[in-house]
Amino acid sequence: MKPPYYAVIFTSNLNENIEGYSKMAIAMESLAKQQPGYLDFESAREELGITISYWESLDAIKEWKSNLDHLAAQKLGIKKWYAWYKVRICKVEREYEFGM
Amino acid sequence: MKPPYYAVIFTSNLNENIEGYSKMAIAMESLAKQQPGYLDFESAREELGITISYWESLDAIKEWKSNLDHLAAQKLGIKKWYAWYKVRICKVEREYEFGM
Repeated sequence: MKPPYYAVIFTSNLNENIEGYSKMAIAMESLAKQQPGYLDFESAREELGITISYWESLDAIKEWKSNLDHLAAQKLGIKKWYAWYKVRICKVEREYEFGM
Repeated sequence: MKPPYYAVIFTSNLNENIEGYSKMAIAMESLAKQQPGYLDFESAREELGITISYWESLDAIKEWKSNLDHLAAQKLGIKKWYAWYKVRICKVEREYEFGM
């Protein structure tokens, strides 16, 4: 991955009852990985959950957002699992690393 | 926060011995909040740690990166706590939310 590329930062809090959430999250991660333009995926949750997916272009993000199975998952998420979420579409302009 | 603004995505894995890390992380979070151009801070760690700080401008990020106490913390981090880390500087171009 060499900048510029794109990141979708998805920050969320879950409801108390998250039956079915974990299975869906795993399914969506593996579906994302099959999308054109997919680059990488990072996720961590304590109380706050942060999931970041990385993409080659804004078009790749648009396609992923409108994927039919993903749309169904988004609807279920709003109905059942998420107390709130926030999505940020970002252009990764620079990166550097240590020890990788 | 209304786009465009900037995000620093800091992804990391810690070493086994992280004596002093937690205290330093808290100190750096409160120091960041006092910096000019600071907007917000989000963090979660499972195995992977993700910390995102949000800023008004690239200049604000530069100043924070070169803050003397922060530089000392970065050096200690490389020497003691981080197995690896990756930093991405991003421009937040769009955002939307549910339930906030």
